[in-house]
Amino acid sequence: MSKFRIAVHITPRKGLLDPQGNAVRDALRTLGFNSVKDVHVGRYIIVETDAYDALTAEDAVSDMCAKLLANPVTEDFEIESAVPA
Amino acid sequence: MSKFRIAVHITPRKGLLDPQGNAVRDALRTLGFNSVKDVHVGRYIIVETDAYDALTAEDAVSDMCAKLLANPVTEDFEIESAVPA
Repeated sequence: MSKFRIAVHITPRKGLLDPQGNAVRDALRTLGFNSVKDVHVGRYIIVETDAYDALTAEDAVSDMCAKLLANPVTEDFEIESAVPA
Repeated sequence: MSKFRIAVHITPRKGLLDPQGNAVRDALRTLGFNSVKDVHVGRYIIVETDAYDALTAEDAVSDMCAKLLANPVTEDFEIESAVPA
């Protein structure tokens, strides 16, 4: 068993309302950043897990996303390649 | 002026408590993912902004991070290269 580090990007699904992103966009404009057109706020999760190889680690993290980390109705997730930790 | 898309990763600073990451780690173990050693939860923010060139866009986003997006005491941020949007 080796230790792997896998990063996950979770973003609000396109086309759905993103109230947090809109709030941040408005706050940035209030601060004077008037060129800001749009903001999307997602989550960035780093999982360190033991696995026999990188592929097994990525599969496990994909399963974690489906079961807990991401909301499959409103969010998309993207898993980066596992790197030895 | 062109439109650029810049992604930002904001992560809890190493060495500081990460209660959200610990909660997610414990929840994953409760769900049967016993190989999980550690979890860090950060934010992933995508900013779409108008700028004259990519460097100006990246500088503006760095300024936004320092002023609003990240907490400079407890968080680190990393800005990806601007890409035309």
